[in-house]
Amino acid sequence: MAVTLKDVAERAGVSRSAVSRTYTEGASVSKQTRRKVEKAADELGYSPNALASSLTTGRTKLIGLVSNNFHNPIFLEVFDLFTKGLQERGLRPLLVNLTDEVDPENSVRMLRAYSVDAVIVASSTLPESFAEGFREAGVPVVHSFGRHVASPKVNVLGINNIEAGRMAAQTLIARGYNRVAFLGGPESATSTQDRHRGFTEEVNLHPDVTMTTSFADAYSFEAGRTEMQRVLAEGGTAEAYFCGDDVLSIGVLSAIQAAGLSAPDDIGILGLNDMEMAGWENINLTTIHNPIKQIIASSVELVSAMLKDDDRFPEARLFACHVVERGTLRPLK
Amino acid sequence: MAVTLKDVAERAGVSRSAVSRTYTEGASVSKQTRRKVEKAADELGYSPNALASSLTTGRTKLIGLVSNNFHNPIFLEVFDLFTKGLQERGLRPLLVNLTDEVDPENSVRMLRAYSVDAVIVASSTLPESFAEGFREAGVPVVHSFGRHVASPKVNVLGINNIEAGRMAAQTLIARGYNRVAFLGGPESATSTQDRHRGFTEEVNLHPDVTMTTSFADAYSFEAGRTEMQRVLAEGGTAEAYFCGDDVLSIGVLSAIQAAGLSAPDDIGILGLNDMEMAGWENINLTTIHNPIKQIIASSVELVSAMLKDDDRFPEARLFACHVVERGTLRPLK
Repeated sequence: MAVTLKDVAERAGVSRSAVSRTYTEGASVSKQTRRKVEKAADELGYSPNALASSLTTGRTKLIGLVSNNFHNPIFLEVFDLFTKGLQERGLRPLLVNLTDEVDPENSVRMLRAYSVDAVIVASSTLPESFAEGFREAGVPVVHSFGRHVASPKVNVLGINNIEAGRMAAQTLIARGYNRVAFLGGPESATSTQDRHRGFTEEVNLHPDVTMTTSFADAYSFEAGRTEMQRVLAEGGTAEAYFCGDDVLSIGVLSAIQAAGLSAPDDIGILGLNDMEMAGWENINLTTIHNPIKQIIASSVELVSAMLKDDDRFPEARLFACHVVERGTLRPLK
Repeated sequence: MAVTLKDVAERAGVSRSAVSRTYTEGASVSKQTRRKVEKAADELGYSPNALASSLTTGRTKLIGLVSNNFHNPIFLEVFDLFTKGLQERGLRPLLVNLTDEVDPENSVRMLRAYSVDAVIVASSTLPESFAEGFREAGVPVVHSFGRHVASPKVNVLGINNIEAGRMAAQTLIARGYNRVAFLGGPESATSTQDRHRGFTEEVNLHPDVTMTTSFADAYSFEAGRTEMQRVLAEGGTAEAYFCGDDVLSIGVLSAIQAAGLSAPDDIGILGLNDMEMAGWENINLTTIHNPIKQIIASSVELVSAMLKDDDRFPEARLFACHVVERGTLRPLK
C-alpha cells in the first residue's frame, strides 16, 4: 500500500499541512519540522509525487523550453537565466533541442504529451507560426526573442530589431564610415530581416553613405567566418560591418585575422547581443547590448502570470538596446 | 468523457496499434496512417498523455540532467549532445541548474518528486556523494565527467584525470619547457586534484624540471584571468602553464595579453577539453582533447540500458585523451 501524506504526518507528529508545506517549494516551514518530516518520510519510504498530484491539480509545473541553436554561446546565458528563473518559482524546464530537427510538429506533439503547463520558445530564428502552433493547441506560450508585431497572436518579448538595425547604421555612420555593410544571420530569420530593414532605412537617409548586404547561413562562428572569407575573396571594400550577432562577429574577426587584417585598423566590426564573451580581452567586441537578462526575467514573470490566469490576451514587451563601446570600431569623430 | 485511443482508431479507420505507434517515438508508421490518425485525434481533441500513462507503465521517460556550470562554453556542446541523444531514444531531459544552489539535497527531492526514470549528473566538480545520493534514493544514476574509482558506487564515465595531468606534463617537457606550472580549477574538484597529481608525478620523474602550482576559483574565464594576473603580479617565472581547462586557458591568455605578453613567444599555454571555441583562430589553443562526444553517447546508452535492467552493477567507463596541436605552445624539439 502506498504511503500517504497522512502516514508521514502521524509518524512525524506534525500536522498534514506541515508535511505538505515541507514539499512545497517556497512554502514556509521551520528547519526542525522539515527534519522531522524528512526523517519520517525516509523511514516510511514516502516520496511526494508531483506527476501524480498533477492529475488532480491539472498542473505539472513542467515548462517546455524550446531552442534551436545550441552552438551560439549566448545560449549558455539564456539557459542559465531561464532555468534559475523557473526553478525559483517551483517550475521545471523540459529542454527541447530543435537543432537539426526537420519536423517541429514533433515537438508540439511531444510537449502536449508531457502536459507541460506552458511553453517558452527561446529563438530569434524560428518562424512565428511555430509559437502559434502551441497556442492553437491550447498551450500557453511565450516567444522570447521573437518578432514584435502589431497584433501578436502569442506573447512576444524581445528587442525591436528594426530599431536595432537603425542604431547599428547610426553607430557606424557617426564614426565616419561611409562604405558600410550588413552581414546578417540567416535570411529566413525575422531577426535578420528586421535588422536589415532598419539598417537600410537609416543608410538611405545619408546620400554619401553606400552599403552592401550579405547573409550567413546561421548564427554561428563557422557561418560568420565562411561568409566573411567569401566577401573578402570577392574584393569587398566596406570599411565597417554590422554583423548579425556576436558569434557571427567573432567568426568574421577570425576571417579578417586569417587574411592578415585587423579590427578596427583595417575594418570595423559591430556585433549584437553583448554576450559575456564579447567582453573578453581576446575578443573585445564593440556591440549592441541586447538586454537578455531583463527579457528572460520578464518572460518567466509572464509565464507565471499565465498559469494563474490563462484568459490573458497576448502582449508584446519591447526592450531597449544600447551600444557598448569596446575595441572593434574606431572612436567617435 | 475523455477521448480514448479506441475512439481515435475507430474514427481514423485504423487499428488501435496504428494509433499507438503514431504516438510512440521511433515506432514505424506510414505517413498516410499518421495523417489519418492525427486528423481524427484533432477532430476528437485527443492528446496522448505521457504522464498519465506513466502511472501504469511506471516510466515517465523524464531524465534529470544536472549541471552546475552554465558559464563554461563546453556546456553548450554538453547540453546539445545530451538533449539530442536522449530525444533520439524518446527520453526527455529535465534540466536542473545547480549554479548558485546551496543545498543540492533540494535537487534530489525535486527529481524524486518528478519521478524521473534516471539522473545524469554532468559535472567534473560536484562531489561523488552527490551522484551517490540519487542511487541511495533508488534512482538510476550516471555520473558523466566524474572521477573514476576502483569500486564505483555509481556509474562513472569520463577520462582518467591522473593520466591527463601526466600527459600535460609530458607535452610541456617534450617541448623543452623546464619551468612548468599547473594552474588548476577549483582545488575542491576531483578533476583538479587528479590532474594535479598526474602532472606532479610526471614532473618528479625529471630532476631538471621545476614546477609551481596555483588554483583558480572556478572553471571560468574570469577565474582564469584573475588567477593569472595574480601569478604575474607575484613575479611568476614559469615558461609554460597547464591550465585546468579551455575556458580557464582563455582567461589566462587574456591576462597574458593584458600584460603585454603573448603565447607562445613569452609563455606557453596548454588547455584541456578541446571545446569548439579552442579551434577558433582568435583563440587557437593547444589543448588536450576530452572525447565528450563519445562520453555522452556512452552515457545515454548506459542510461537506456539501466531503464531496461535496473539490476546492473555500477561500472566505470574510461576514455582516452590526446593532444591537439595549435598555436599556444612552441613546437616539439
